[in-house]
Amino acid sequence: MRTPRFDVSVYGVLDPARTHGRSLGELADAAIRGGVTFLQFRSKTQNTRRFLDAAFEVVKVTRARNVPLVINDRVDIAYAVDADGVHLGDEDMPAAQARRLLGKDAIIGQTVHSVDEAQAFPIEDADYFGVGAVYATSSKQRDVPPIGPEGFAKIRRSLATLAPGKPVVGIAGITWENCGSVMAAKADGVAVISDIFMADDVEAAARRLASAVRGNGEVAA
Amino acid sequence: MRTPRFDVSVYGVLDPARTHGRSLGELADAAIRGGVTFLQFRSKTQNTRRFLDAAFEVVKVTRARNVPLVINDRVDIAYAVDADGVHLGDEDMPAAQARRLLGKDAIIGQTVHSVDEAQAFPIEDADYFGVGAVYATSSKQRDVPPIGPEGFAKIRRSLATLAPGKPVVGIAGITWENCGSVMAAKADGVAVISDIFMADDVEAAARRLASAVRGNGEVAA
Repeated sequence: MRTPRFDVSVYGVLDPARTHGRSLGELADAAIRGGVTFLQFRSKTQNTRRFLDAAFEVVKVTRARNVPLVINDRVDIAYAVDADGVHLGDEDMPAAQARRLLGKDAIIGQTVHSVDEAQAFPIEDADYFGVGAVYATSSKQRDVPPIGPEGFAKIRRSLATLAPGKPVVGIAGITWENCGSVMAAKADGVAVISDIFMADDVEAAARRLASAVRGNGEVAA
Repeated sequence: MRTPRFDVSVYGVLDPARTHGRSLGELADAAIRGGVTFLQFRSKTQNTRRFLDAAFEVVKVTRARNVPLVINDRVDIAYAVDADGVHLGDEDMPAAQARRLLGKDAIIGQTVHSVDEAQAFPIEDADYFGVGAVYATSSKQRDVPPIGPEGFAKIRRSLATLAPGKPVVGIAGITWENCGSVMAAKADGVAVISDIFMADDVEAAARRLASAVRGNGEVAA
């Protein structure tokens, strides 16, 4: 296996439903300027045409800024806009199918909710893992309680054995204030929506999070 | 341009929301036994995983019965299950993008609602057209009134000039009883959901429709 050629440490999740009316391109650019190292674009409510148009807007920025972009769920959108890959959950296409469409160089991320899921998953099909929900979140409703940093650590250890070298990010409810506990549980990064993209100053919010992830106290809040 | 290698004359549209609880594979098989020559599978409410699983079930039947299958909207699903193509509307991916994913041999259908849309559309990107809504329908809500056989005939004439040789099917609200008017307006076929798939006896309903489309009076009702 190659060394991962991407950095998931400050992983932003951009969603057209959570922009406070600002443009997606503007938000992506501000987040990357502030220190986001990896971007996921997801859209749960748009039709294909709007999702596609929006994804074109985002990929223009990530290409210019040289930050990887993955599309949530929709392999066709990822292919059409030439994104770097997809992020998949258990309601989405199996990773092997996505790989067949997108090719060996695509970055494929997979959400994992439990040690059982990690063990059942064909681990070779994904390039990184998102593990959670670490904390409760307003942006996605699940009927299972959050796993906390302790639950994260358990799944993370399991993945370290099953998929050595593949990065694992914590997902859900993570902010600059609580990300330290997730990083301490051996996360390679944290995936964040609201704490970045719902902020008034997205660039400053991303910088504050990036700083906290790196564990130095110089928080630009 | 090659002669179309597919027959859209009796065009069934299968939708998991309109099955009366019967299995998709069973419905597809019965419809084809009854005379459906072309099948579209659409799903507006399922997540990707369920849509994919359902499409695998349908394509197994269409392959065995040697009838083309197109997937509505989702190019990724079409690719994953190796369907024959996609059917696209104005909320879906542009046909040229779908072509890039699916290749030159894919069958790409495009919905056209008006002469203006027909003239604006890059006609070379599609292999056949669906024109409507011919009649009012319960299975899709649009805020424009149905065009009737007269409106269909007008768009059909326009497409005959713009895209000579490409088949055109009438869509929406078509039944074995009214399909004669659509065929008389120079349709190459009719696309039907409810009149086939909501029937108690799907095979008999398809046979009745096929017979009516061919214009002979021998209705097997």
